[in-house]
Amino acid sequence: MSLFAQCRKLHSIQSLTRIPVKGTCLKRFHSSPRVRNTAEQKKLRSPRVVFSGIQPTGIPHLGNYLGALSNWVKLQKTAAPEDELLFSIVGWHALTLPQDPKTLSDSRMDMLATLLAIGIDPKRSILFHQDQNQNHTELAWILSCLAPMGKLQRMTTWKAKLAASRNANDESEVDESLLNVGLFTYPILQAADIMVYKATHIPVGEDQKQHLELAKNLADTFNRAYKAGVFPSPHLVTTPCCRILSLKDPTSKMSKSAPDTASRVLLTDTFSAISLKIKASVTDSLGPITYDPILRPGTSNLLTILAACVDEDVHSVAGRYEGKGHEALKGDVAEAIEKMIEGPRLEFERIRGERGYLEEVARDGALRARERSEETMREVRATVGLP
Amino acid sequence: MSLFAQCRKLHSIQSLTRIPVKGTCLKRFHSSPRVRNTAEQKKLRSPRVVFSGIQPTGIPHLGNYLGALSNWVKLQKTAAPEDELLFSIVGWHALTLPQDPKTLSDSRMDMLATLLAIGIDPKRSILFHQDQNQNHTELAWILSCLAPMGKLQRMTTWKAKLAASRNANDESEVDESLLNVGLFTYPILQAADIMVYKATHIPVGEDQKQHLELAKNLADTFNRAYKAGVFPSPHLVTTPCCRILSLKDPTSKMSKSAPDTASRVLLTDTFSAISLKIKASVTDSLGPITYDPILRPGTSNLLTILAACVDEDVHSVAGRYEGKGHEALKGDVAEAIEKMIEGPRLEFERIRGERGYLEEVARDGALRARERSEETMREVRATVGLP
Repeated sequence: MSLFAQCRKLHSIQSLTRIPVKGTCLKRFHSSPRVRNTAEQKKLRSPRVVFSGIQPTGIPHLGNYLGALSNWVKLQKTAAPEDELLFSIVGWHALTLPQDPKTLSDSRMDMLATLLAIGIDPKRSILFHQDQNQNHTELAWILSCLAPMGKLQRMTTWKAKLAASRNANDESEVDESLLNVGLFTYPILQAADIMVYKATHIPVGEDQKQHLELAKNLADTFNRAYKAGVFPSPHLVTTPCCRILSLKDPTSKMSKSAPDTASRVLLTDTFSAISLKIKASVTDSLGPITYDPILRPGTSNLLTILAACVDEDVHSVAGRYEGKGHEALKGDVAEAIEKMIEGPRLEFERIRGERGYLEEVARDGALRARERSEETMREVRATVGLP
Repeated sequence: MSLFAQCRKLHSIQSLTRIPVKGTCLKRFHSSPRVRNTAEQKKLRSPRVVFSGIQPTGIPHLGNYLGALSNWVKLQKTAAPEDELLFSIVGWHALTLPQDPKTLSDSRMDMLATLLAIGIDPKRSILFHQDQNQNHTELAWILSCLAPMGKLQRMTTWKAKLAASRNANDESEVDESLLNVGLFTYPILQAADIMVYKATHIPVGEDQKQHLELAKNLADTFNRAYKAGVFPSPHLVTTPCCRILSLKDPTSKMSKSAPDTASRVLLTDTFSAISLKIKASVTDSLGPITYDPILRPGTSNLLTILAACVDEDVHSVAGRYEGKGHEALKGDVAEAIEKMIEGPRLEFERIRGERGYLEEVARDGALRARERSEETMREVRATVGLP
C-alpha cells in the first residue's frame, strides 16, 4: 500500500504504532535503527502527531481498505489520548493528473462519506479536505525555495513518469518537457502536508519512502538554514503492510486504475458482486490450498485477504485449508469480505445522502486543520522574515 | 526596468496606458499588433485591472523610481475611475534567493513606507503584501498542474541562472541540481499574482516579456482545459521605459546588488550623498556634452536621468548643454534629483516611524486583496472540481 501515491492510487499514511496487530508493531517501531538514544526514544513516546492523506479519486477498494484505511480506524481506537490524528482528503494532489471536474467533486464528497462510514470519528480525529487549508500551499512555496532541483529529479516516481511518457510514444518525441510541473513538484506539497502540522509519525509504504526522506530533509534544511528548531523530523514508520494484489493479475497490486473492474473489490460492492469477482479470480491448478506467494500468487492473495478480514495470521488460516480446494476457499473469502464491509457499505449509503452533515463535517474539519496549522505558519513566517 | 526581476532587482509592472507621457503611450497601446479588432479594442478600453509588484529587498534606487515607481504614481493620477490598480510587495518572490530574515522583515515595511512616500494612495489603489494573500500560492499550485516543464526550462531567466551557477564553479560541478526549485517555478507564482485578480494590463520590460507570455499561455490553457472563460488574457503593454544605468559602469543597469554603492542613488540619499555620487560618476573626455548612448554611455546616462527628472525629452535637454562640460551637467543632475526626491525622502522618514499606520495600511490592503481575489478563486475551485 503506497502512501501519497499518484496515478489515481490511494494516498495514505498510517501509523501502526500502538496498534496491537499481532503484537509486532510496537516492537518494530522501538527496534528501529532511527531510535538511537533514550532522549530520542522519549521524544518518540511523547504526544505523536500522525498525518495521513488519501486522494479523492473514486471509491476505495479492498487493497486500500486493508492496507491503509482499516489501520486508520484501528489507530484511532488505540492511540493515546494525547496523540493527535489528522486524516486528509488531498484534493490538490489529484490535479496532477487530468480530472473530470464533476467526477472529482463527487469523489471528494464520497471519500469523506467513506471515511466516516468505516469509522473515522471527526470528533477524535481532524478529518478534512486538504484543499480547504491554504497553509499547505503557502508552506509548499516556502519549502520550494529550499529544495534543490536534484532532489526532485532523483525521485523514482518522477523517473517512472518520465519513462512512461517516453514509452508511450514510439517516436520518442514525448519527454519531460511535456509533463506538467505539478508532477515534478508534488513531493514538496506532500512535505508541506506533513510539516504544516509538525507531524511526527508518518508510516509509509516502500514506494513512498523516498518522498518522506525529502520531507525529513526539508525539515532539516529549514531548521539549519534559519538556525531554528521549527520542524521536528518526521519519523518514517515502516508498517507490516497488508499488500493486496489484483484478482486478475496477482503479479501487480490491486489498483483503482486497472481497466478490468473485476480485478478489484470496491467497498461499495454488494455480496453478489463480491462473490462473482472472487469466484472469477485467477488462481492455479496446483491442487490443494497452500500458502506460497511466489509459486501460487493468486491463491496466496486470497489467503492474505481472508487472513486480513478475520485478523489472523495467514499461515494459520492456510492450515485450515489443508486438503481443500479453491471452491471452498473462494466461498469463505467472499463471505469474510462481506462480513467485514457490509457495515461500512450500508453506512456509506446512508451518510452519502446526508449532504448537510457531510458539509458540516468538512467545514468543521477545515476550521480545525487551519487553526492547528496556523500555529506552525506564524512561526515559519516570523522565522523567514515575512511575519 | 525589468518587472518581477529576480536577483534583488526590482519587481515592477507598470501601465503607461492613459499616462500622457509625451503623448506616446495611448498611441503605442492602441497601435499594438495585439489589438486586432473592434471587439477586442472595446474590451481593452473597458475597466482595466493593472497589477504591479516589487520585491522588498532594500530601498529603491533612481532606476527603480524613474523606470517603474514614478509611473505607478502617474498611473494612479491618470487612471479612469473604473480602472482597478493593484500594487503588491511580493515577499514570497524574495525567498528564491537567500535572505537575512531580520533584513527582509525590515525591508518589507520600508518598501511599504516608500510606496506611500512617493504617493501611492492606499484608498485609490489596493496596496498590499503578497505574502498576506494565500490565494496566490493556491492558484500557483493549480496552475503548476497545467504548466509543461518545457515552458519553464525555456525561460531565459532560468537559463541565465544555470549559466551563472556553472560559471561560478571552475570545476563545472555546480549545475541545475543545486539550484532551488523556487528559482525554476517562480514564473508560475508570477502568473498567479497576475491571474488571481484577473489583471488585464501588465506592462513589462523586455527582460520579463517571456514571463508574461507564460501567464497568457496559462490563462489560455486553463480556459481551454476546463472549457471555461475564467481568465482574461493579460495584455502585455511595452512601456517606453526609462532605463537608468550604473553610475560606475554605464554598460549595465543601475542595480541594488552591485557591490559599489556609489553606482546607484537611493531614494533616501541626502543631497550631499547625491552630489558626491553624481560628481564621481563615470563619464568620458570627449569634450562638450552630446547625447550619444553608444559612444558616450556615461554622459548620456546623466542626460537621461536629468530628462526624466524634469520630465522633458532627452534631446532637448541635451541641446541646452551645447558647448558646456561635465561639471555643469553633473551639478544640474544632482540638483534635479534632489528636487525630485526630497519630498518622498522626507515623507519616507516620517512614515517609517509610524508603525501603527503602516500596519493598518498593510492589514487593510491584505483584506481588500483577499476579498478581490476570492471572487476569482471561488470560480477556479468550482471549475476544477474542488469547490
